[in-house]
Amino acid sequence: MADIKFEGWLGHNPESVKGKMEWGPFEPKKWTEDDVDIEISHCGICGSDLHVLSSGWFPTDYPCCVGHEIVGKAVRVGSKVKHVKVGDRVGVGAQSRTCQQPDCPECSSGNDTYCQRLMVGTYGSDYPNNEGKSYGGLSSADAAPMLCGGVTVYSPLRRNGCGPGKSVGVVGVGGLGHFAVLFAKALGADKVVGISRKNSKRDDVLKLGADEYIATDDDQDWHKTHNRSLDIIICTVNSANMPLTQYLALLKRGGELVQVGAADNGDFPKINVFSLLTGGIKVSGSSTGAPWEIKEMLQLAADKKIKSWIEERPMKEANQAVIDMNEGKARYRYVLVNENFGKRGTSNKL
Amino acid sequence: MADIKFEGWLGHNPESVKGKMEWGPFEPKKWTEDDVDIEISHCGICGSDLHVLSSGWFPTDYPCCVGHEIVGKAVRVGSKVKHVKVGDRVGVGAQSRTCQQPDCPECSSGNDTYCQRLMVGTYGSDYPNNEGKSYGGLSSADAAPMLCGGVTVYSPLRRNGCGPGKSVGVVGVGGLGHFAVLFAKALGADKVVGISRKNSKRDDVLKLGADEYIATDDDQDWHKTHNRSLDIIICTVNSANMPLTQYLALLKRGGELVQVGAADNGDFPKINVFSLLTGGIKVSGSSTGAPWEIKEMLQLAADKKIKSWIEERPMKEANQAVIDMNEGKARYRYVLVNENFGKRGTSNKL
Repeated sequence: MADIKFEGWLGHNPESVKGKMEWGPFEPKKWTEDDVDIEISHCGICGSDLHVLSSGWFPTDYPCCVGHEIVGKAVRVGSKVKHVKVGDRVGVGAQSRTCQQPDCPECSSGNDTYCQRLMVGTYGSDYPNNEGKSYGGLSSADAAPMLCGGVTVYSPLRRNGCGPGKSVGVVGVGGLGHFAVLFAKALGADKVVGISRKNSKRDDVLKLGADEYIATDDDQDWHKTHNRSLDIIICTVNSANMPLTQYLALLKRGGELVQVGAADNGDFPKINVFSLLTGGIKVSGSSTGAPWEIKEMLQLAADKKIKSWIEERPMKEANQAVIDMNEGKARYRYVLVNENFGKRGTSNKL
Repeated sequence: MADIKFEGWLGHNPESVKGKMEWGPFEPKKWTEDDVDIEISHCGICGSDLHVLSSGWFPTDYPCCVGHEIVGKAVRVGSKVKHVKVGDRVGVGAQSRTCQQPDCPECSSGNDTYCQRLMVGTYGSDYPNNEGKSYGGLSSADAAPMLCGGVTVYSPLRRNGCGPGKSVGVVGVGGLGHFAVLFAKALGADKVVGISRKNSKRDDVLKLGADEYIATDDDQDWHKTHNRSLDIIICTVNSANMPLTQYLALLKRGGELVQVGAADNGDFPKINVFSLLTGGIKVSGSSTGAPWEIKEMLQLAADKKIKSWIEERPMKEANQAVIDMNEGKARYRYVLVNENFGKRGTSNKL
C-alpha cells in the first residue's frame, strides 16, 4: 500500500480562511496497526474548520488540513482493528483518539469526549509516541456532517432526557441548530421551538419539524410570552451580546441551557446570579459526542429516515465554500464531494 | 387574643444596616383562619437580612422588620390550620406563602420555592387580598438558622444526589458554608472539601467534619492539584472577582457548581464557554428550600445530632449583631434570643 498519496486542501496561515487554502500533499501520521486509511468521498464543513483555519480558538499548527465530518471507504486496515475491513464505508468525526484505558474515568464510562489523558483532534493535533501530526480531509453526504455537527447536539439532547414529555428550544438555526431540531423531534420531544433573530428562517424551521418559532428581533415580549416553557435549550450560537438572560427566562424550574456553540474568544454574556437562583436553573456546556453516541445517532437517523439539510459542493470549490460558510450562506451545511472517489491509483488530485 | 402586640426591630431606611434599627410596634398582616401567631424565642440573622435592611437587592418597603430564621411557640392557631396546635414549638424560614394550588407546576411537585404565582417573603412582602404586609421577627437556637441558611444548602445537596460515592466542595465557609459541610457529611458524601481564601478557617472546617481544605490565596496551584475531583460544588459566596474558572476546574466531567450566595448586585464573574464545553459541566442556581425539604433536614439534624455553630446574642443587641455580621465576625451564625419569651401579657418589650 505504499502507493497511497495523501493530499488535501491545506491552510498555511490565518489568511487561508478567506478562501486561500492551497491543494497539496501532506505527511500523515506514522502508520500503526491500530490505523485505518480512508479514501474520502464526502466531507462536511464545520464551523470549527473556520475557527482553526483563522487561528481563532488558539494558534493553529500550520500547515493544517481541516475537515472532520468525513465519510469514505476503508482502503487499508491495521491488523489490530477488529470492527472494520477493507472496502467498508466508514466515517470519522472531530476526535480521532483518546486514551481508551480501563482506569480512565471518562473513557471507561462512555464519556470519551472528555478524556483528560489524551485528546487527538482529527486535524491540527499531535499523535503520541512521535506518530506524527493529525490531518483531516477536506473531502455518503447525509452522514458526513452528522459526525461532528449532528452528534454535538445529539449528545446533550440524549443526556438531558430529550423525549416524550419534554419541551426543547434550539437557539440559532444553522448547521448545528438544524440538526438539533431534527434530532429533538426524532427523539420524541413533545415540543420543539426554533429560536433565531429574524423571521426569515421561520418557514425552514417549521419544515424541519419544529412546532414553534421565535424571532427574537421581531417578536415582542417573546421572553415573557414563552416564560418557563422549556425543559432544555440547546444554544448553538455564542456571542457576548446574545440575550442570554431572556433565553434563561424560557426555562422551566430546573431546566437547563446547554451551550454548544463556541466563538473564537469563547466570550459569554454575564449571567446574573438571581436569574440562576430564582428559576433553580442550570447553564452547562457540552463538547462533541462519544463513539457510542455517534453509533446510536446514525442508527436513529437511519431508522427515522432523517435527511440532513445540506448543499453538496465539489471538493475543488473548498475555498469558495469556506468563504460562503463564513458569510452565513450555508443552508444548513456544506458537504464537499470528492469527484475522484474510486479512481485511486490515478491519485486523488483534483 | 386581641391583647397580642407585635413589636420588633424595625429598619426605617438603608442606614438601618449600620446598627440603626429601632425597636417599635408594627401592624401585622390581617388575621385569617390559615394563620398562626408565634411568640418568638430565637431568630437567626441571615445575610439576606443585611441585603434587605440596606436596600441592596431591591428597594425595600420600609419600615421592615427583618428576620426569617424564626423559632418560637404557637400562641394563636387559625381554624383551617391542621398540623399545628396552640403551645407547639414551630418555625418559619424565608418564605411564608406560595399559591399551593394543585395545578401549579411548582407547588404540586414539591418545588414551592419556585412558585411563580405567589411568593410572599417572611418579611418585606405584601400578602394577597389586601391582607397586609409581611414582617419577620428579629428573635430552640440550633434550629432557627437552619430554616433559611441550612435549607438553602441542604436543598441543592439533596437534589444533586449528595451521598455515598460523591465528592462535594463548599466555597465560602460562613453561615451557609458551615451548614453545607455539616449536611454534606450527614448525607454520607465520601469527601467534603472546604474552600476559602485564607488558611485561618482550616481548623474550624476540619472540625466541622470536612476531609480537606483549600485556601485559594495560600495554596499553590490548587485548581491543578484538585482538578476534576468534585461532583458538586456549593458556592456560598458571590463576587464578580471570585476565581470561578478555577472553581469550575475542580469539577469532574458532568459535575455541577450550584450558586446559592447572592451579593447585592448579583454580579457573577464572566464564564468562558470553553470551560463549560471541555468539562461538560453545569453552573446552576438554587433558591431556599421547600417545606418538605425543611422537614427532612430537621429530621436528619435530629437523627444525626447536628449542632449548628452559632453564637447566641440577646435580642436587645440586634443592632450590634447586624454590624458584626456585616464585618464577617459571625462564627458562623448569630441567633438572637428573646429574653422575654414566655412572659407574654407583660408585652415583649425589651
